[in-house]
Amino acid sequence: MSSSDIFTGEIIGTAVLILLGGGVCAAVTLKSSKARNAGWLAITFGWGFAVLTGAYISAPLSGAHLNPAVTLGLAIEGGTEWSDVPTYLAGQLLGAMIGATLVWLAYYGQFQAHLTDPEIVGRPDEDAAKAVEGPHDGASQAGPVLGIFSTGPEIRNAIQNLTTEIIGTAVLVLAILTQGLNGDGKGLGVIGVLITSLVVVGLGLSLGGPTGYAINPFRDLGPRIVHALLPLPNKGGSDWGYAWVPVVGPLAGAALAGGLYNLAFA
Amino acid sequence: MSSSDIFTGEIIGTAVLILLGGGVCAAVTLKSSKARNAGWLAITFGWGFAVLTGAYISAPLSGAHLNPAVTLGLAIEGGTEWSDVPTYLAGQLLGAMIGATLVWLAYYGQFQAHLTDPEIVGRPDEDAAKAVEGPHDGASQAGPVLGIFSTGPEIRNAIQNLTTEIIGTAVLVLAILTQGLNGDGKGLGVIGVLITSLVVVGLGLSLGGPTGYAINPFRDLGPRIVHALLPLPNKGGSDWGYAWVPVVGPLAGAALAGGLYNLAFA
Amino acid sequence: MSSSDIFTGEIIGTAVLILLGGGVCAAVTLKSSKARNAGWLAITFGWGFAVLTGAYISAPLSGAHLNPAVTLGLAIEGGTEWSDVPTYLAGQLLGAMIGATLVWLAYYGQFQAHLTDPEIVGRPDEDAAKAVEGPHDGASQAGPVLGIFSTGPEIRNAIQNLTTEIIGTAVLVLAILTQGLNGDGKGLGVIGVLITSLVVVGLGLSLGGPTGYAINPFRDLGPRIVHALLPLPNKGGSDWGYAWVPVVGPLAGAALAGGLYNLAFA
Amino acid sequence: MSSSDIFTGEIIGTAVLILLGGGVCAAVTLKSSKARNAGWLAITFGWGFAVLTGAYISAPLSGAHLNPAVTLGLAIEGGTEWSDVPTYLAGQLLGAMIGATLVWLAYYGQFQAHLTDPEIVGRPDEDAAKAVEGPHDGASQAGPVLGIFSTGPEIRNAIQNLTTEIIGTAVLVLAILTQGLNGDGKGLGVIGVLITSLVVVGLGLSLGGPTGYAINPFRDLGPRIVHALLPLPNKGGSDWGYAWVPVVGPLAGAALAGGLYNLAFA
Repeated sequence: MSSSDIFTGEIIGTAVLILLGGGVCAAVTLKSSKARNAGWLAITFGWGFAVLTGAYISAPLSGAHLNPAVTLGLAIEGGTEWSDVPTYLAGQLLGAMIGATLVWLAYYGQFQAHLTDPEIVGRPDEDAAKAVEGPHDGASQAGPVLGIFSTGPEIRNAIQNLTTEIIGTAVLVLAILTQGLNGDGKGLGVIGVLITSLVVVGLGLSLGGPTGYAINPFRDLGPRIVHALLPLPNKGGSDWGYAWVPVVGPLAGAALAGGLYNLAFA
Repeated sequence: MSSSDIFTGEIIGTAVLILLGGGVCAAVTLKSSKARNAGWLAITFGWGFAVLTGAYISAPLSGAHLNPAVTLGLAIEGGTEWSDVPTYLAGQLLGAMIGATLVWLAYYGQFQAHLTDPEIVGRPDEDAAKAVEGPHDGASQAGPVLGIFSTGPEIRNAIQNLTTEIIGTAVLVLAILTQGLNGDGKGLGVIGVLITSLVVVGLGLSLGGPTGYAINPFRDLGPRIVHALLPLPNKGGSDWGYAWVPVVGPLAGAALAGGLYNLAFA
Repeated sequence: MSSSDIFTGEIIGTAVLILLGGGVCAAVTLKSSKARNAGWLAITFGWGFAVLTGAYISAPLSGAHLNPAVTLGLAIEGGTEWSDVPTYLAGQLLGAMIGATLVWLAYYGQFQAHLTDPEIVGRPDEDAAKAVEGPHDGASQAGPVLGIFSTGPEIRNAIQNLTTEIIGTAVLVLAILTQGLNGDGKGLGVIGVLITSLVVVGLGLSLGGPTGYAINPFRDLGPRIVHALLPLPNKGGSDWGYAWVPVVGPLAGAALAGGLYNLAFA
Repeated sequence: MSSSDIFTGEIIGTAVLILLGGGVCAAVTLKSSKARNAGWLAITFGWGFAVLTGAYISAPLSGAHLNPAVTLGLAIEGGTEWSDVPTYLAGQLLGAMIGATLVWLAYYGQFQAHLTDPEIVGRPDEDAAKAVEGPHDGASQAGPVLGIFSTGPEIRNAIQNLTTEIIGTAVLVLAILTQGLNGDGKGLGVIGVLITSLVVVGLGLSLGGPTGYAINPFRDLGPRIVHALLPLPNKGGSDWGYAWVPVVGPLAGAALAGGLYNLAFA
């Protein structure tokens, strides 16, 4: 793969991933969306098929990493050249920011309606009530739409939150690394793309409860930057204090998976 | 493929697509349906497996476009001859109208029960209350069963609604165009059909919130014509003022995807 | 395939189909089941994966018809010998009865708890209230657990109910007949089994609302016979007045699909 | 396969299976989980994709049994050497215990919050009320989080509970044994892994209602041991009186399936 194909593929694929992944969060969250309150199963299938769509489109160009944790895991395993890593990362971050912006464009009217509804944003009493749950309540520290862009913990505790992200990402990267052994070839084959997307549905269902399963540093960081930049009314803070956790946790999980793979499977 | 096979295949495939897609909307909407209020996840899986069934049946005859946006995207990319486009479109529009009529036949008793229930159709006060939400409330301008036939916006704003349809359709067409590169061959292979149908589930979950994701001009127009023609009691208007949006938006999205594909992938 | 393999395969496959299909109806219906009230999406996925499991197990022996409508469609098309049809039908009916009996064994305690609960079976007033909805209310004429065994209409009207079953079964049989053209080979290939099962999920979501989608004569008749025979307390009638509809409708739909296939695809 | 590969593969695969399977139970059960009360469909898809992920990762090393019932069925059929059985079992039990421990680590904060909430653990009156349902009420004999680790019956009756587990496991093992005949090869092929995981979703939907579908001795026993060992506050008993049922039932079901397979398919 040429550097240009890698860069283009990762931009397009990650943009589609975040467009559809952020999209399902917008769909179930925002006022005047037909899918409002569609539930956790809708969110997890939405993110899984976001992976399916983004990976299917970008696989022929870049091999569809779409995630720095995947790139790191494959570099440790040897399937990706270390010299290609910066190109992958640059495409992924840019793509994630484009995707988050597209969510805003697709749901522009809903964002406006939601963020100017006094029932939703003008409830200092309720926010105060939430805060009573104490410093561990992650939701109370996030604005009303930040969850459409980035992840946040239900119980705010850095070591705990890192642990959850490490475990989830290690499983994801291990599943991707073993694809080559399952006869799908390197650079996701078409069945491999499908199975990976269902693995991501499973990770959301099973390990998404505590932190919202970033399991991808730029899936969290890119949209968080966009949240900070967009002219959204009453959007609240971008919770930068938590931003390092969904970056460090997934990278540590990927390193763990890469090491385990080289030890047990290679 | 012969013109006759294309025409027949698109009629049958699009009829099945709209029969099952409109069917799930009838199933979750109408009084005396076992699936009433089954929720958004049911609607999106229903439409996705409608694509699966229609495409699987028609793929051997016509390559299973079932959608003018797909036909346009493939013509731009070069996989479909421009001279075949009118045959595709004619089959698709006819098929969509047949499919919508079959929904009516399959749910005839439910339509009658629903549209003659004074609790459902005789609520001028509630309709008035809905209208208070203002000119942006799409739902208030549609009859009680139009949503089984055609799409409608939650917030009525042409530029906004076009944007959402353009974005959604561009992702769909891009996924279909890259199938050839994923080793499934042109003219959907069997795994390609499966993945496309799950992509459509994902598009519904992620981008269906604002407008109900037409992402297919005739999926909207064909059934809307049928809604206008059928002898349904108390059916209300067919909202022709909105009808151009789900035609123009998807075609623009397809053109965008075709251009992007030729630029980045070809 | 030998007659013996066909007979054995259809018994085992249809027994598994009805065990899992009836099982999901028991699971969402009966008192003291963990899945009680899990909803329509659970029912449709349950039946779809019942098809998947039964067909996957029996495909190597009998080609996994599991349904007289499928056997009829394939005989019309030419893929199945007319002389094998009686063997298929005998295995299917026997298998369906075994499957329904296994549902009873697996949920024996739940059946007993449900059918001896005065809140559930001792409500003559409520039954009377239901009956007020008039002669078209199918539910009011069925016992409290008949829906676990057989289908029943929400609105009881023979022509309407036949129409719905004809349309649904025609789509199912058409999808199965085109498998050969999709490169999966005759006698369901493994991908064909998967796609057929998702088509069945889709048929349930989209066309199950009016009659509960028998789309298979013995899926309805076999368990209805078992319902009549089992020593279930307070079970109520087996609604034999409706029993011919889910036999005749699916067979007519299969004949329609077989004719259409020979006309358009062969 | 070498003994070392079998042992390593079964440890890793079973750990992933129980991590994701127990994880979805934690996700829908525990306070401060985003997925709380996500419903039975979420649980069954979560367990199905847990099988998918664990089997996909371990298939290249050990053939992905992950379940003593599968190992027994394959040994009876002849696909697995009896001399390898102890290695499989040792890896599976160890892996199951590791997986259950990882669930605890990933949801540590949620476990603490849940088990120290007086609304949840300090309700002797409600427990008393539950006990009124009598000796058949399985739930009343289990602690507030035991269901995240092990299965339990809704109606406690050993013969009934054994019957349900035997039926469910026999279907599972039969589906796995026929894989070789479906052209996926022995030792799950990649499509076989996918279909098996959807079969498990189906088993949960259809036969999970009475006992919570162990259908795997160590899926129940391994986590139950971990529940007994972990320092969880107010955890209650580990219900050892029931522990033999989800061991004996699945093994009997596997033996039944192995015998039936050798009789009908071999």
